[in-house]
Amino acid sequence: MRKIYVIGIGAGDPDHLTLQAVKALKAADAFFILEKGEVKADLTGLRRDILDAHREPGSYRLVEGRDPERDRETSEYVRAVDDWRVRRADLFERFIADDLGDGECGAFLVWGDPALYDSTLGVLEEVAARGTVLFDHEVVPGISSVSALLARHRTGLNRVARPVQITTGRRLAEGWPEGVDDVVVMLDARTAFTRHLDQDAYIYWGAYVGTADEILVQGRLAEVSERIERLRAEARERKGWIMDTYLLRRG
Amino acid sequence: MRKIYVIGIGAGDPDHLTLQAVKALKAADAFFILEKGEVKADLTGLRRDILDAHREPGSYRLVEGRDPERDRETSEYVRAVDDWRVRRADLFERFIADDLGDGECGAFLVWGDPALYDSTLGVLEEVAARGTVLFDHEVVPGISSVSALLARHRTGLNRVARPVQITTGRRLAEGWPEGVDDVVVMLDARTAFTRHLDQDAYIYWGAYVGTADEILVQGRLAEVSERIERLRAEARERKGWIMDTYLLRRG
Repeated sequence: MRKIYVIGIGAGDPDHLTLQAVKALKAADAFFILEKGEVKADLTGLRRDILDAHREPGSYRLVEGRDPERDRETSEYVRAVDDWRVRRADLFERFIADDLGDGECGAFLVWGDPALYDSTLGVLEEVAARGTVLFDHEVVPGISSVSALLARHRTGLNRVARPVQITTGRRLAEGWPEGVDDVVVMLDARTAFTRHLDQDAYIYWGAYVGTADEILVQGRLAEVSERIERLRAEARERKGWIMDTYLLRRG
Repeated sequence: MRKIYVIGIGAGDPDHLTLQAVKALKAADAFFILEKGEVKADLTGLRRDILDAHREPGSYRLVEGRDPERDRETSEYVRAVDDWRVRRADLFERFIADDLGDGECGAFLVWGDPALYDSTLGVLEEVAARGTVLFDHEVVPGISSVSALLARHRTGLNRVARPVQITTGRRLAEGWPEGVDDVVVMLDARTAFTRHLDQDAYIYWGAYVGTADEILVQGRLAEVSERIERLRAEARERKGWIMDTYLLRRG
């Protein structure tokens, strides 16, 4: 039986690692690293720094795979993700079957928390359902980019006795969600907050949270929106990629 | 200037501590512990175990305060919480003013993540607004009970490109939230999921997640609801208190 750890490694600060994550890191024989092209080289580098900090060189294997390209232009977002997931499952299946010996332990290092807008668990379920390779898997929770953002802004996710919704930029662009005044937005490639400048809302925004490149802005949405757009565009230009998250709080 | 750390210590497993949390634990001169009565003695004990694991005895001070009682019977939930928050702010203010010397560092150890249904940050803001004691504060994010629950069930919080709402038992009892099929429920003292047995929903439930007493149940809501109710009542009777959380996934 092979064992797979899915390890949440936090949102960018190497000190976000939990003691449980460090133990799992130390138990793994092999790490599966997905290369996402040059723009994400920073992130791959951060993953290696984490390994260097907790493992002796030569005490583990790195297995690198090329992450399948996803069609980001199509309007059929869910189908494009499904198709990409199948190709990713092919890759994971080969990793477990070919690169992990019987009784060995492999690990996926996942940014943030594996439960939040990450595909690793879904892809592993698909591999398990195929039944072509036998493995057991365990999930190590991590500090999500949401927790990291709110900690840096020293504010809460929810207000007393109130609900909060976590959603995507794509959905926020379609309208403010029903029934909630507190909305966390992830995966927003198109600054969907600019559609809601008419709302009496406050924004807590952050990019590259927990890293040396961290940028934080908070303030009344209508007042800071342009500044965030400008900072976001500049940072994206400078680094070649951006990861940002925000909380909108209305009323 | 006094420094206050608000440290998320995770959901019950001492290995949920992050490396950042361990560093903050080691930097503190004093820890403020709120006693919540005998039923919560287990939790206070767990906090002490964490201190014992990372600090030498005698190298820090423990300052214990009696958490103000909250009126849990009133229908005016928000007002009762506000009143309780003022009394808690009185307590925090005395802690910072009386039990922390100039230049010293104090810490609050918060279960889960300080951003999620925890009052510590709000109370500290109230103390700061009074302006009677000067202090700086820093938040260390933690593994939330939600992340811990989902890790144990090896499932995600959201489905691909879909939103998720985090809400309270009180609100779920009033109706299924608008616009979402995935709902995380916290602070549910009255098993509000039993109001939704007519929904085509799946439940991922857990109590005391991450501890030796952990109980996990997942399944079709209509099929496992009674079992969860029974397990929950038995555990509450046996231990005198319960902390549980769940994800409802519809369709």
